[in-house]
Amino acid sequence: MKFVKIKKIIKKILIKHKLSKNHSEICSKALINAELVGAHSHGLSRLKMYCDRINQKVINPKPKIKIKKISQSISLIDANNSIGFVSADIAIKKAISSAKKTGIGLVGVKNSGHYGLSGYYAEQAVKKNLSVLCFTNAPPAIAPFGAKKSLFGTNPICFGTPTSSKIPFILDTSVSVINRGKIRVAAKSGKKIPKGVALDKKGNPTTNAKKALAGIQLPIAQFRGSGLAWMVDILSGVFTGASHGGKVRDPFDDFNGPQNVGHLFIVMKSNLFVSNYKNRIKENIKRIKKLPKLKGVKEILYPGQSRFARYRKNVSKNIILSQNVKEDLIKLLN
Amino acid sequence: MKFVKIKKIIKKILIKHKLSKNHSEICSKALINAELVGAHSHGLSRLKMYCDRINQKVINPKPKIKIKKISQSISLIDANNSIGFVSADIAIKKAISSAKKTGIGLVGVKNSGHYGLSGYYAEQAVKKNLSVLCFTNAPPAIAPFGAKKSLFGTNPICFGTPTSSKIPFILDTSVSVINRGKIRVAAKSGKKIPKGVALDKKGNPTTNAKKALAGIQLPIAQFRGSGLAWMVDILSGVFTGASHGGKVRDPFDDFNGPQNVGHLFIVMKSNLFVSNYKNRIKENIKRIKKLPKLKGVKEILYPGQSRFARYRKNVSKNIILSQNVKEDLIKLLN
Repeated sequence: MKFVKIKKIIKKILIKHKLSKNHSEICSKALINAELVGAHSHGLSRLKMYCDRINQKVINPKPKIKIKKISQSISLIDANNSIGFVSADIAIKKAISSAKKTGIGLVGVKNSGHYGLSGYYAEQAVKKNLSVLCFTNAPPAIAPFGAKKSLFGTNPICFGTPTSSKIPFILDTSVSVINRGKIRVAAKSGKKIPKGVALDKKGNPTTNAKKALAGIQLPIAQFRGSGLAWMVDILSGVFTGASHGGKVRDPFDDFNGPQNVGHLFIVMKSNLFVSNYKNRIKENIKRIKKLPKLKGVKEILYPGQSRFARYRKNVSKNIILSQNVKEDLIKLLN
Repeated sequence: MKFVKIKKIIKKILIKHKLSKNHSEICSKALINAELVGAHSHGLSRLKMYCDRINQKVINPKPKIKIKKISQSISLIDANNSIGFVSADIAIKKAISSAKKTGIGLVGVKNSGHYGLSGYYAEQAVKKNLSVLCFTNAPPAIAPFGAKKSLFGTNPICFGTPTSSKIPFILDTSVSVINRGKIRVAAKSGKKIPKGVALDKKGNPTTNAKKALAGIQLPIAQFRGSGLAWMVDILSGVFTGASHGGKVRDPFDDFNGPQNVGHLFIVMKSNLFVSNYKNRIKENIKRIKKLPKLKGVKEILYPGQSRFARYRKNVSKNIILSQNVKEDLIKLLN
C-alpha cells in the first residue's frame, strides 16, 4: 500500500478514537515516518496500543495542553496525558521558535507518553538550520550498573545538526547494548547472543537468548552506559516534573494510569558562535569520511545517513504491512 | 607531602612560567583537585607538559581572554590560547551567572587547551544548585566506527546535578573504553592495559600501553560510542569555532602551534520546572539504591560517589608523588 494511503487510514482510526483532526494528523505523520525510516518497532505495530490506552482512559484524546512560558527561551509543557506525539510536536516547535528568537530554546514536557523516535523531532529543528539535543525517559528495560533488576528505560540520547547536504546529522542512540527485538529473534532461531548484553534472572551473565529474555538487558559500556541512562532519566524525568526512577509505566502492559513520560529539548542556532557553520560541518564530515577504512567498510557513514537512505528508498515504494498490523488496522477501523 | 604544600609548589612553578598569580591559583587548584579525586593522569603528571608548551610559546601565559556577550544567557569566549584551566574556569563562572539570572547559561570556548577534568567544572555549577552539561574535544585518540585511524578525542560527556546530600551527582565519562590518561600512566610505569581497550597501529588487539598510544583506542559500544564522540566534537569544536575533525593538537607531542581545543557548557537552574528538585532527586537515587544487587555488589553507586570518596580520603592524607612527578617538580622549580 502507498504510504499516503496508510497515513489516511491511521488518521481515520485516530479520529475515530476521539483525537482532533489536527492531533490525528500529527500522530499519523510521526507513525508513518517511523515506518519509512525502517523503525517498525516505533511505527504501526504500536497503533493498537495507543488506541487501547485511549479506550482505557490512560491516554487523554482531548488533552488541555498547557504551555507555561518561563522566559523568551524557556517553557514547560504539561501534556495532560496526551498521546506523546502531540505534546512532543508542540514542544519541539516551541523550542524551535524560542531558539530562532533568542539563540537557545529549552522546553521540558511532563505528563506525556511514548513519543516515537527522538530523531523525528530533532529533524524538525535541523530543517530550520538549528542544532538540537532531545532526551526522553521510558519504562524499565535495563538494569543500573550493579543491580539485578531493570529500572532505566532504553533512554535515548539524540543530537541533530544540519550538514551541507540534504541528509541531516541525526544521532539517535539508545543506551542498551542491543534491542530486545534482536534477542527475541535469536531466541526463536536458537542462536546465542553476544557476551555482555544480558543477564539471566538470577543475575548471571548469559549468552542464551531465552534466559536473557527472562532476565535483564545491560546498558552499553557498563558504568558509563548506566550513568548515561541515569542522566537521561534525571534530565527528562526528575528535572521536568515527569515520572522517573522506574515509575514510567509500560505502555503495553500497564493500564493502571497514564505513563507520565518526560521529555527535554535543547535547541540552539547553529551559527550562534560562528558565521560559517555549514562550511565547518562540511569540512568536519569530509575529514572523517577520508580516513582509511577497516576491511570491508565501503564508506564511513555519519549518524542519520542510513536512516535517510532507508527513508528515500521506502518513500517511493509500497509499504508492506505484517499480518498482525493488517489485522490491527482492520479491527481499529471497524 | 600535604596537598596544600604541593599546591603552593605548583603555583610557584606556574608563576615562574609567567602566569599571573590569579591564573596560577586557578591552575594549581584544578591540578591538585585531579590528584585528590585520584585522577593522576589529569594532575601533576601533566605539569611539565603545560610548562613546556608555555616555553615553546604554544600556550599563552598572559592571554587576553575575550568574552563576547551574545545575550543575557549566551556568551562566546576566545581564550587566546590560554592554558585550558583558566578559560574553562572563566567560562563555567560565566555560565553559572547567566543561569542564575535567566534560568539557562550557554557558553562556548574556542582557542583553549586541555582543561583537565570536566567534573571539576561541573562541580562548580552543582555547588550553586545548578544542573550542567560540559563537552570538550581532544586530540585524536579513538577511531570513528569503520575507520582504522584515530580521529576523535576521548571526548567526555559530563553531566552534574545537585543531590540532597553533600555528594553531587557527577557523571564524567569519556567515550573511549578507558581514558587516554590511564594508558599514558600505564605506559610510563611499564604496566599492561586491559584487553579490548585498544588496537596497535596495524589494527591488532594489544595490551601494551605504548603500542596502544601509537595505535587506536576503541570507542564504547561501537557505532553508538563513535556517534557520541562525533556529537561532542561537533558541539565543542565545529559549533564554537575551535579546531575539530582531528585537528586539535596533542599537547604532549605537537608543539607546532596551540591546541585550539573547544568547550561547551550548558548550565540550568535545577528548580526551573519543579519547586522540589532536591526531594525529587533524593527519591530517584533512593529507588535505584534499593534495587536488588548483583553478587558482590554492596551498594549501587551513583556517578560521582567514588570520586567523592577518593577526595575525602585523600584530602586528609599526604599525597604520594611518583618518582617521575617528583623529578618534574624539582626541575620545574629550578
